[in-house]
Amino acid sequence: TKFGANKTWLQIQGVWELCKEDTGREIFALKVGVTVLLMSLLILLEAPYQVFGSNILWAILTAILVFEDTVGATFNRGFNRAVGTLVAGILAILVAETALSCGHVAEPIIIGLSMFMIAVITSYMKMWPALVQYEYGFRVALLTYCLIIVSDYRIGNPIRTMIDRLYSIAIGGMMSVLVNVSIFPMWAGDQLHKELVNDFYSVSDSLEGFSFHYYRSKNLLCFFFDCKAKSAKWEPPHGKFMHISYPWSQYEKVGAVLRRCAYEVMTLHSIVHAEIQVPYKLRVGLQSEVQEASNQAAEVVRMLGRDISCMQWSLKDSHIKRLHNSVKRLQSSMSFQYSSMLTSAFESPTDNSSNSFANISHIIYHVPYQREMEEELECYHEITGKQLRRLYSWPPREADAFEEDSEKNIKMSTAILSLANFASSLMEFVARVDHLVEAVEKLSKMAKFKSDEGL
Amino acid sequence: TKFGANKTWLQIQGVWELCKEDTGREIFALKVGVTVLLMSLLILLEAPYQVFGSNILWAILTAILVFEDTVGATFNRGFNRAVGTLVAGILAILVAETALSCGHVAEPIIIGLSMFMIAVITSYMKMWPALVQYEYGFRVALLTYCLIIVSDYRIGNPIRTMIDRLYSIAIGGMMSVLVNVSIFPMWAGDQLHKELVNDFYSVSDSLEGFSFHYYRSKNLLCFFFDCKAKSAKWEPPHGKFMHISYPWSQYEKVGAVLRRCAYEVMTLHSIVHAEIQVPYKLRVGLQSEVQEASNQAAEVVRMLGRDISCMQWSLKDSHIKRLHNSVKRLQSSMSFQYSSMLTSAFESPTDNSSNSFANISHIIYHVPYQREMEEELECYHEITGKQLRRLYSWPPREADAFEEDSEKNIKMSTAILSLANFASSLMEFVARVDHLVEAVEKLSKMAKFKSDEGL
Repeated sequence: TKFGANKTWLQIQGVWELCKEDTGREIFALKVGVTVLLMSLLILLEAPYQVFGSNILWAILTAILVFEDTVGATFNRGFNRAVGTLVAGILAILVAETALSCGHVAEPIIIGLSMFMIAVITSYMKMWPALVQYEYGFRVALLTYCLIIVSDYRIGNPIRTMIDRLYSIAIGGMMSVLVNVSIFPMWAGDQLHKELVNDFYSVSDSLEGFSFHYYRSKNLLCFFFDCKAKSAKWEPPHGKFMHISYPWSQYEKVGAVLRRCAYEVMTLHSIVHAEIQVPYKLRVGLQSEVQEASNQAAEVVRMLGRDISCMQWSLKDSHIKRLHNSVKRLQSSMSFQYSSMLTSAFESPTDNSSNSFANISHIIYHVPYQREMEEELECYHEITGKQLRRLYSWPPREADAFEEDSEKNIKMSTAILSLANFASSLMEFVARVDHLVEAVEKLSKMAKFKSDEGL
Repeated sequence: TKFGANKTWLQIQGVWELCKEDTGREIFALKVGVTVLLMSLLILLEAPYQVFGSNILWAILTAILVFEDTVGATFNRGFNRAVGTLVAGILAILVAETALSCGHVAEPIIIGLSMFMIAVITSYMKMWPALVQYEYGFRVALLTYCLIIVSDYRIGNPIRTMIDRLYSIAIGGMMSVLVNVSIFPMWAGDQLHKELVNDFYSVSDSLEGFSFHYYRSKNLLCFFFDCKAKSAKWEPPHGKFMHISYPWSQYEKVGAVLRRCAYEVMTLHSIVHAEIQVPYKLRVGLQSEVQEASNQAAEVVRMLGRDISCMQWSLKDSHIKRLHNSVKRLQSSMSFQYSSMLTSAFESPTDNSSNSFANISHIIYHVPYQREMEEELECYHEITGKQLRRLYSWPPREADAFEEDSEKNIKMSTAILSLANFASSLMEFVARVDHLVEAVEKLSKMAKFKSDEGL
């Protein structure tokens, strides 16, 4: 089966491409390896083992459990584990001492009930929406509590267990953080910054050339921004982001506004590539205005992206004004086209004229990169595209016996709809670009970007 | 500060409402408590302690770590932990025996390097997109490997450690699953089913009464569906879902199509509630057609929801046909309105007529529940609404000196745009309902819903 072999070969190539593209994965794996190796020295070498004893095992476990891909996430997890252990440990010691003083019979009852209570409280709290981010901390707290109070009951000396556990966790956690920061550190903030700038460029490219790169799963991207921004908040000032309390949450907001712009670009694409289109006559008439408006919009988006990338603010009001003017020109020339189209439709209601109009409006415009584009896009766009195509070939499925007259009207109104739809999407896009400008301006102020005015 | 106290009081009320509304959280917390209590008996009572020894501590830890809110998620986690432990344990014993036979000097080197290798391999694999769902399994495998191989080196007898660990994990895991299934079980499948049906009803209600309930964060909802469907796949047949390999993934797909319908409803709302609207004359002329089309669409959506809820398939082709016909009527009466509007605009180009037209088109329609609605909606809708309002009051910000003539044209085209936009959104919605019907029909076949035809 040559086909099967070929497919396997393509799959292997795909995996290899993925490997080459994302070296982060290899670096992460090697870093975990180094951490574990360093921790294993503590137990394999004679000298440290003499000092720490076999309880140092917990340090290895901590290092493994705390190690995450970015610095921020590791800090966050380490913090959760440390605080959870500390609080639960102190509580466990207090309860253990109390239980001990209550006598032989009451002790196991008190211990059992306290475990029940702590389990209920921590589980209840970690389900709260506001506390979900500390889920790991609550889990660790419950674990630690059970561990210490049980080992107190069976082995005795809860304070010793507690101290052992605390310094093991401290050693493990610190080693994780140290390796994470010192060997090729991956900062969540850097990733967020880079991704945001890339997204700006993609939207701009895709608008200008009407070529398509951007659209991986949007929900995934939203999750990415959310998750990285959360981690980035835990990171100390570093690299380009030396400013204390850097506004990472504003990145999320800018990302959300940008995503809405991207949706609009997707809609524009669907309309442009729909099978039944704006009548040729109209399209040619508006060509230059559409081109100019979308070029202006693309330029503003690209400038914003470059500004974020360079951490400066150079967008002038004149750019936005030029964009607005180009949209106004588009709109006025559109209404001119309307008038002429409709006047002609009404002035000569002979069969001949209306037929030629219907013919033009039904020309299926050959789009050379239709197929290529379709392969590139995923679910959302595919469905939208289909729907739009169906929309413009409305009525679908069953073709009823409509009167000739209303049939003509419907064809005309479909053509108007298609044009109106495109123009309104473009204007909507420009309106969203305004929002984008506002969001980035706010970011530039919060993050203290360099301003051109100072130069 | 009375205002502050009032606010606090409102917050407390809000928390209490949330508590009452979602009893799942309390049940979950109590179940965790019961599990921990049962596990603690194993160590607090004398008889089981004599049998198992202090290693049974691991059973408590496992029970805590494995316990998740739904049955499916608990199964999944238990499976990950069991397989991870088993594979890593066997590997660790093999390596330990090999290392032992290599002599005194080589042993720690082999152990250290093997830990490094395992760390790198598991970390690399868990970063693969396809394997991310087994992340916990890889983590447990690494932990277990380190634990067993280190305790072999320092304490000896790795097989004993391995067996202790295995049966502790088996006991803990089984106890978690048992409690989860026997006390008020929360099935991810049930939750998914219920949420989907509710979403159908919300979309339908919101379309019919143009009232707004649906819109919590869409991305959250997407994540919810994704997550629950994943868990549901792990659940054994239960309750209404006795059919083996029940098509949970199709639920995800139906949910995605439904979400697209909901977006379209949101767009319709924005247009209806935009400040500058379709001219009154036009709106009244189309009122009954719009009402009928949206009622028909709402009815189809509600029927689909009821069908899923009752696990039957009762939608007839006639329903869909009726919906399509009502949209056709809307479209033809819309094109009629166009004609008359434009004819009047062209036939009497006196200042008087055009002024009255502009006046009508600029009436800001008072929407009584505008404010209430705005409070209910979150981010996405708010921004969309603003944008649309801005769109229809285009050109924004700076009002240039346009010629009178083109000014008139722009106003007219804005009115056309607004109407065309509404109609095209409604048609788009109906096109999406077609997709919805297809998706639900596929679900009904896959899930072997009862068919009306058999009755």
